[in-house]
Amino acid sequence: MPIPHKVKIVEVGPRDGLQNEKQLIPTATKITLIENLVAAGLTYIEAGSFVNPKWVPQMADSAEVFAGIQRKTNITYAALIPNLQGFERAIAVNANEVAIFAAASEAFSQKNINCSIAESLQRFEPVMQAAKEKQIPVRGYISCVAGCPYSGEVDFQQVAEIAKNLLDMGCYEISLGDTIGVGTAGQIKQLIEVVAKNIAIEKLAVHMHDTYGQALTNIFASLEMGITVVDSSVAGLGGCPYAKGATGNVATEDLVYMLNGLQIEHGVDLQKLMLAGEKISLALNKENNSRVARALRANI
Amino acid sequence: MPIPHKVKIVEVGPRDGLQNEKQLIPTATKITLIENLVAAGLTYIEAGSFVNPKWVPQMADSAEVFAGIQRKTNITYAALIPNLQGFERAIAVNANEVAIFAAASEAFSQKNINCSIAESLQRFEPVMQAAKEKQIPVRGYISCVAGCPYSGEVDFQQVAEIAKNLLDMGCYEISLGDTIGVGTAGQIKQLIEVVAKNIAIEKLAVHMHDTYGQALTNIFASLEMGITVVDSSVAGLGGCPYAKGATGNVATEDLVYMLNGLQIEHGVDLQKLMLAGEKISLALNKENNSRVARALRANI
Repeated sequence: MPIPHKVKIVEVGPRDGLQNEKQLIPTATKITLIENLVAAGLTYIEAGSFVNPKWVPQMADSAEVFAGIQRKTNITYAALIPNLQGFERAIAVNANEVAIFAAASEAFSQKNINCSIAESLQRFEPVMQAAKEKQIPVRGYISCVAGCPYSGEVDFQQVAEIAKNLLDMGCYEISLGDTIGVGTAGQIKQLIEVVAKNIAIEKLAVHMHDTYGQALTNIFASLEMGITVVDSSVAGLGGCPYAKGATGNVATEDLVYMLNGLQIEHGVDLQKLMLAGEKISLALNKENNSRVARALRANI
Repeated sequence: MPIPHKVKIVEVGPRDGLQNEKQLIPTATKITLIENLVAAGLTYIEAGSFVNPKWVPQMADSAEVFAGIQRKTNITYAALIPNLQGFERAIAVNANEVAIFAAASEAFSQKNINCSIAESLQRFEPVMQAAKEKQIPVRGYISCVAGCPYSGEVDFQQVAEIAKNLLDMGCYEISLGDTIGVGTAGQIKQLIEVVAKNIAIEKLAVHMHDTYGQALTNIFASLEMGITVVDSSVAGLGGCPYAKGATGNVATEDLVYMLNGLQIEHGVDLQKLMLAGEKISLALNKENNSRVARALRANI
């Protein structure tokens, strides 16, 4: 299969990236980050989440973030939500889309959200109903698709079934997340092959963490399988609470650099993106995890 | 083309990795590193170089390193050499193999070794003659195959011609080096396609620097093209003097992790390899550049 000519980048830095930061990040810093990402050409930004602030304190100000963004047209500002209450909070601040989530492993589901996978899907039914009524598109995440920190190997057939369930419930797209970054290229190809048996490949996205340095390779392997939607995080923001010393999502800059080399259209200006990454890294007083940004730092 | 079942890893950490270190590294530290790498199952180690110590002061003690290693059978301890004098010094300390080098770009050749590509090849003729007489295998490096820090784009046809020249001169294998790490997967596939037109793919190796985070992806793309020999550097040792903030070679640990996932045979024990990487990183007081080592640190 030839690799696609065009890829949609889903920028998850402001949510998946920042949510693991221990330090309190000012709301204004988050808003600036989101506006800088949009200025760089990104059209889909996961801007925050409406989960219980007890669990994710960093996202407690998501309503203020959504309210504070200078909105641009044709940009999707999305929010992660755990339940109907979260959905309503997201809608109240005009989130354009919401994302729901399930785990590919029973052990992870129990540890993370304290219920089985089936129960977690069931809990989202009222959300899907409300979203349908309000015509809000819903994206579905599946975490731990390539391995679970508690139970190890994951059954790809199970991932395929959860993906099918989420689509049947009304999700328009499923993002396959290698939450702990353990997958390698051959496994990812196998996974996509299994999942795409009963699902159109256009409805699948990949969400790769770089914990083991495999993220970009796994994305390349995914493109070779026909995947056209890729999640990434500016400056490689984010971390994984399950693996010490682990880095976060693949850096959007490194993804864009690869896509440029592959002559795949994506609409993002690498220079402006790097600037957004440098600014948030400075604001967080963190090393920029994008290799491209570090290599080209002198040119930004 | 199916990816290969078996890959030979050429460990270049003790030479290409350490040579860019500014701090003086004790000879004993280098010897321990090499012995630890062999203990981990690596069978080909580039252990040092015999270039003018004025240009590469870190390699000034390569004779002592070669003399000090507790040699194991069936292990290749190789040396990089610039000329006949270097060859003779390498042979004097029983290097099993030598490596010579040329650049894929005229600008790089002039800046790096002060002569044209053609002249650089000519200068190696006495070495090839001497190596033939002494039955010493010679490996050929081509640097800057995916881009030049001075002249930008590189003509793949030119890379193919230099590779052919080196083989005709007597090299048994050509390592294609993306010295500044700028290449992306599509370009690397194109490069290999062009170079392999007149050369058996078994005679080609890849040597990828991770400056832009693309190294492992480029290696995966190379495997997909049928490449079976990969250069790498434990703990991602090394740097590139041409790109500020750049990291070095791809980390052997991250490569081994990927090969394990792909079920490709390589003969290396990842745990022992990680230990070797942690020890040299500690000795150099440097962050370990292997993502796998960082993620699994608690398990080493």
